[in-house]
Amino acid sequence: MDHEERRRQIAEALWRIASTRGIEGASLRDVAAEAGISLGRLQHYFTSKDEMLVFALGHIERLGEQRVLARIGELSGTPAPREVLREILTEMLPLDDDSRTGSLVQMAYFVRAVHDERLRRHAKDGIPALRALFAGLLRQAIERGEVGPDRDAEAEAMLLISLADGLTSFVLLEVHTPEDALRLIDHHLANLFGSGGRS
Amino acid sequence: MDHEERRRQIAEALWRIASTRGIEGASLRDVAAEAGISLGRLQHYFTSKDEMLVFALGHIERLGEQRVLARIGELSGTPAPREVLREILTEMLPLDDDSRTGSLVQMAYFVRAVHDERLRRHAKDGIPALRALFAGLLRQAIERGEVGPDRDAEAEAMLLISLADGLTSFVLLEVHTPEDALRLIDHHLANLFGSGGRS
Repeated sequence: MDHEERRRQIAEALWRIASTRGIEGASLRDVAAEAGISLGRLQHYFTSKDEMLVFALGHIERLGEQRVLARIGELSGTPAPREVLREILTEMLPLDDDSRTGSLVQMAYFVRAVHDERLRRHAKDGIPALRALFAGLLRQAIERGEVGPDRDAEAEAMLLISLADGLTSFVLLEVHTPEDALRLIDHHLANLFGSGGRS
Repeated sequence: MDHEERRRQIAEALWRIASTRGIEGASLRDVAAEAGISLGRLQHYFTSKDEMLVFALGHIERLGEQRVLARIGELSGTPAPREVLREILTEMLPLDDDSRTGSLVQMAYFVRAVHDERLRRHAKDGIPALRALFAGLLRQAIERGEVGPDRDAEAEAMLLISLADGLTSFVLLEVHTPEDALRLIDHHLANLFGSGGRS
């Protein structure tokens, strides 16, 4: 097993802890036990919990990106911007076990990042790329006459990302079911794409 | 000093820890030290960290409600539903030190609640009341012709709450400045109240 593969295996042990009891109280030793290796062996791959968390988060994000690309690939023909946006937003919500685990790891990371500037830099890194992707799709939709020309693509992109983030928290807290959250996203998209709020 | 006042004083010690280094790793002993009392004395008031967290959160929410009521009281005449909504949403965002601390305590609570059903019940408790308040204001706005009759007040209420929650995370992560977050809320309100996305 090569170095990267071992790191992924350890990250997956961290995810299992995240999805059952949370990782705030979990030590490097706990993660090593879950991965079935010694603490010394684990420290060969990760010297701190934060380093492990950054890697686990990156790994989850890559898997998420692959799932989004697969979803978009399954759309027939050339998908409209609205369809692509919806697929990405759907993938951002904790609708199944994999994405729920992803959200929990993200949350654990986030809680640490608030008090740690180095971690915060990482957390911020991903947002501009996602925002640019959404804004580009929205600009396409405006050009195609699917979104009103008076909408500001950059602001609407950030509203969508913030909304998905808030809905994720409420699904994890069981304020919403995953289905409710998706319905609210559809509701917002229907407002944005001008077919009223009744979809 | 009576029992409740002592509990509030301990809650405020917890907030100070929350706003500087986070409370995930903080023990009851740490909170006692911050409050300037012994661990035994603290345990006279709170038997567990979760009990303390529930109390601290309730105390923060009551202070937040008082601040919202004060804000609304300062509006001239009979405020329009849009103005009242904006004041509440503004209070929900971490725009100053007090509300930032409140958000951090809420987040710490939230992270624990995801893995603890009893705590989750508390977390869920507040949402329906807020949702009903927002939906009532939106129904008023629809009746007054300020929001389109095709809008679903319940869904729009939940979208606003989710948006404020997502924006709060991004302000804490410094993805947005507090001013950006407020601008995005205004942008969303302008869409909702039909004056386009340019405000």
